[in-house]
Amino acid sequence: MDNNMNPQRLHVEYPNCNSLTPDWIVGFVDGEGCFHIGINKNDEVKSGYQVLPELTVVQHKRDIQLLYRLRTFMKCGVVRSNHGDRFCWRVRCLKNLVEIILPFFEKHPLKSKKNIEFHRFAKVVRMMEKDKHLTQEGFQKIIKIAEEMNRQEQREIRIKI
Amino acid sequence: MDNNMNPQRLHVEYPNCNSLTPDWIVGFVDGEGCFHIGINKNDEVKSGYQVLPELTVVQHKRDIQLLYRLRTFMKCGVVRSNHGDRFCWRVRCLKNLVEIILPFFEKHPLKSKKNIEFHRFAKVVRMMEKDKHLTQEGFQKIIKIAEEMNRQEQREIRIKI
Repeated sequence: MDNNMNPQRLHVEYPNCNSLTPDWIVGFVDGEGCFHIGINKNDEVKSGYQVLPELTVVQHKRDIQLLYRLRTFMKCGVVRSNHGDRFCWRVRCLKNLVEIILPFFEKHPLKSKKNIEFHRFAKVVRMMEKDKHLTQEGFQKIIKIAEEMNRQEQREIRIKI
Repeated sequence: MDNNMNPQRLHVEYPNCNSLTPDWIVGFVDGEGCFHIGINKNDEVKSGYQVLPELTVVQHKRDIQLLYRLRTFMKCGVVRSNHGDRFCWRVRCLKNLVEIILPFFEKHPLKSKKNIEFHRFAKVVRMMEKDKHLTQEGFQKIIKIAEEMNRQEQREIRIKI
């Protein structure tokens, strides 16, 4: 019998598959996570632009299992190919961001300055929850917050290179 | 009175300064840590080469406080300037690697494939503890392990760029 089909083996491995803890996740996201607000041109939307908040964690494919474990622990998001040999765990669904991601990182705060990005991100997500991104005033406010966040990201990309 | 001189304020902030946990550190090192074996040419050493194992965690200067908190929690290492706006927490002292770093990551294992690098690193450090790096055979073995680790690092650098 194929080992992967052996229910006992699956049973033994199950606890290990779920051995992530909130503190570990906070540390890992402090290091590797990215809270991003995308502003994409989209003619189907009244304002002409779509607001796309997302949390991503990118890893080399050798650690794809870790991304699946993040998804299992957080009960949301998808694991997708990123660039080259990299994969990411990504949460875009507004409902999951509001109901899972924001409460998680409010209960277990990031310890790095990335926490400032998280709070800007949370502000935008909560505005979107109330459809404020569909108003002229709300959209302009989001653009401003996104620009501040993206400036920080650009600095970080330069640092990593 | 200057706020920084207010003992009550210091008292309130103290727990926050030490709020790192082993799980958070493991997550953060899974993301940002680097176990490295340097082999440097050094004519003062009999073999002509010096073996320099080190653990480093690099951050942008905005998170230098986090590096100091790592040093405080682990009771070893130094915080030093790295490149440009980056700083690192670095542990090179063999005694601290043997007595603090190895036991810590053996008790609290890394969850990413970086754990493989850690075990190679631990092997070299324990060989050095027994002065095996001073023998021809031991030194050759260390070179081989270091080459395997550095190949992995090179792949990771390419991925980040």
